[in-house]
Amino acid sequence: MSKLEQERRSYEVLDRAAIQASQLKRLNQLLDSILPENQFYAEKLGSQLKLDDLSALSNLPFTTKAELAPTDSDSDFARNLTYEVDRYVRFHRTSGTSGRPMGVLDTASDWQWWIDTWQYVLDAASITANDRVFMAFSFGPFIGFWSAHEAVTSRAALAIPGGGLSSEARLDLILRSNATALFCTPTYALRLAEVAAQNGVNIADSAVTRIVVAGEPGGSIPSVRGRIENAWNAIVIDHAGASEVGPWGYPNADRTGLHICEAEFIAEFVDPETGQAANGANPSELVLTTLGRTGCPVIRYRTGDLVQPVYPDSGNRFVMLQGGVLGRSDDMLVIRGVNVFPSGIEGILRELPSVIEFRLIAQRDGEMDSLLIEVEDQNDDSDAIAGLLESRLGLRIDVACVELNSLPRFEAKGRRFVDQR
Amino acid sequence: MSKLEQERRSYEVLDRAAIQASQLKRLNQLLDSILPENQFYAEKLGSQLKLDDLSALSNLPFTTKAELAPTDSDSDFARNLTYEVDRYVRFHRTSGTSGRPMGVLDTASDWQWWIDTWQYVLDAASITANDRVFMAFSFGPFIGFWSAHEAVTSRAALAIPGGGLSSEARLDLILRSNATALFCTPTYALRLAEVAAQNGVNIADSAVTRIVVAGEPGGSIPSVRGRIENAWNAIVIDHAGASEVGPWGYPNADRTGLHICEAEFIAEFVDPETGQAANGANPSELVLTTLGRTGCPVIRYRTGDLVQPVYPDSGNRFVMLQGGVLGRSDDMLVIRGVNVFPSGIEGILRELPSVIEFRLIAQRDGEMDSLLIEVEDQNDDSDAIAGLLESRLGLRIDVACVELNSLPRFEAKGRRFVDQR
Repeated sequence: MSKLEQERRSYEVLDRAAIQASQLKRLNQLLDSILPENQFYAEKLGSQLKLDDLSALSNLPFTTKAELAPTDSDSDFARNLTYEVDRYVRFHRTSGTSGRPMGVLDTASDWQWWIDTWQYVLDAASITANDRVFMAFSFGPFIGFWSAHEAVTSRAALAIPGGGLSSEARLDLILRSNATALFCTPTYALRLAEVAAQNGVNIADSAVTRIVVAGEPGGSIPSVRGRIENAWNAIVIDHAGASEVGPWGYPNADRTGLHICEAEFIAEFVDPETGQAANGANPSELVLTTLGRTGCPVIRYRTGDLVQPVYPDSGNRFVMLQGGVLGRSDDMLVIRGVNVFPSGIEGILRELPSVIEFRLIAQRDGEMDSLLIEVEDQNDDSDAIAGLLESRLGLRIDVACVELNSLPRFEAKGRRFVDQR
Repeated sequence: MSKLEQERRSYEVLDRAAIQASQLKRLNQLLDSILPENQFYAEKLGSQLKLDDLSALSNLPFTTKAELAPTDSDSDFARNLTYEVDRYVRFHRTSGTSGRPMGVLDTASDWQWWIDTWQYVLDAASITANDRVFMAFSFGPFIGFWSAHEAVTSRAALAIPGGGLSSEARLDLILRSNATALFCTPTYALRLAEVAAQNGVNIADSAVTRIVVAGEPGGSIPSVRGRIENAWNAIVIDHAGASEVGPWGYPNADRTGLHICEAEFIAEFVDPETGQAANGANPSELVLTTLGRTGCPVIRYRTGDLVQPVYPDSGNRFVMLQGGVLGRSDDMLVIRGVNVFPSGIEGILRELPSVIEFRLIAQRDGEMDSLLIEVEDQNDDSDAIAGLLESRLGLRIDVACVELNSLPRFEAKGRRFVDQR
């Protein structure tokens, strides 16, 4: 075990008081190093700030994605940059909320922080120097697996870049190179399985034994995970991260949820409506503070991710999100008084082996949401699908079977939820 | 100036005896570190070898691309790997000669060698921490600009990855991010200019002042370079490299040719027919030996590149290839007794502002080559084009004007030479 891996292991088993003491120290170091240079936070927090206790964090204002969005017409960069652009070495981009793309930059040391923090995910996937890791990813300005790619080589595994290839070419290279691990979105793992079946390629017999997924909830939805695992004869390792935040989540040992990497992030859980500390009864919104990224820090960042936190009491004591990210607060539908999430519907649809693809179309009908589900079903049986949904959700939802191969396929994040509200 | 840059500068101005003394020392170190582990070279050179003089190199056998091609049906890796695959961290792939793709691997230290050696190119392009470098490249298994991307960040410039984007999206991001340098193939620099013109995008006013090109001869062909420079209002920096070899060439100060980076490569020049040392009268074939890449070394590798070497006698004394790579030995056509290279024809066609795209189709006619040139010409004037070619080459060649936008466009290496011989 390397020194860094030993450090990760020893950090994971600290008790809560020790974790919080470390977080308080790191947070004050961060504040000290970014204030007052970081104008965005100097305006929000003052030019100097030191917390005496971690509980004082909840007195600070939230940071929202909308606040980070560029307002200067000359710049597409996020507004929380600490330094002049010349100090940064890596450019990535989110789609932004205002419709304008938002550039997120990292300095050389922040990029090293990404790579180091990614190691928690690679530990969970047991990636070693013997592994050959295929990246089914297009390596554009979206952050995706860029940091993973370097994290993989930094632990001496062989990284095989799969940008700019068709699905057929990727399958061919996965087999030819004897790749032992595959990194992609859950959607694309299913898509490759579909293309393999169409081309008579036997992926269950490939050398791939682990599939590391990101970008969508699927890796934590049991039916989606089960489908991928069956098709590939491999286990699925979920993780979570975001351009504005970093790689914050990695799966627990039995893969029932995601640990937050509390060595590098402070997690808070708030009521998505009121922003007050959540009582734990209902899914809460995850709020994250980065501890090790000085060039583009976020403090009390409202992720919009809805989660159910659990504090484990043995082994890894980092807070765990039961079932991973359950949904996005902005995706929630209220159908005749019932809260419904697209990820919840996906979980039900993926239980049906006959379902190939689907799409949800949400519209607003007065104060109420309405939903139509289009499904490619080999059985062409919309009643069976609507019946299953009703039995699970207690709600009748319109289901329309559409022609096989008529719905879009995705390489990056799937866009199966068309929100017309 | 950094310590590494000082080292590069001081190495460049050594006299020939000092360069050769260093090369001999490095070569013996390489032989010592790879033999007998590297089975491929142990078979060719014996299990132990030490040269007393650099001139003894010419007694060793050549290495050809065909020899490196995998023969084992279980492996697609090049045959010159020194170590077990577990030792390697980077996978790239060439198309190979036998029709089978060939995997070329790098260890962590070999990859660092790529990044360090790339710095000669970045010096020539004056890339600094103030630069924002856009990579118009798909980041697949082809080595392309992978090493450049990390070389750029290693000198603290901002790297903007442009994989998986359309040409329109790339132009938009180049402008939005105020990119100061663009890395792409010569063909794609022209293609982006064409798309910009079609969309009314003014690239001449963009912040791009340098375009680093690779993968094709175009960057050293004055008319191609001039066309790119005019369209972008930027200078073109050529360089040369190959998966099996490394980034071996960078432009001289006045950009009339390519220096071989003799700090890291030994260059020899041979008659492409006989393999004997060339007398310098005609273009010679470049033969390269890598000095710093132990995991995948090549010794006396026949590149197939035809070049005209010049030994400068002041300033940078690394051998210089006048006009860069003039052509490939396997591309040479003999038309009615005259040697003609596709790159030479490209150089002539690109002088005509009316010419948008072209394609060369070569066929064998008994012992003779025949050639048809298809041209997208805004003037639709095949006679003018044939006339210009005749005046330059002393040879009448068939020219056919084809519809505008009917010929293929390219993002990676252009494939304008269709060899049906």
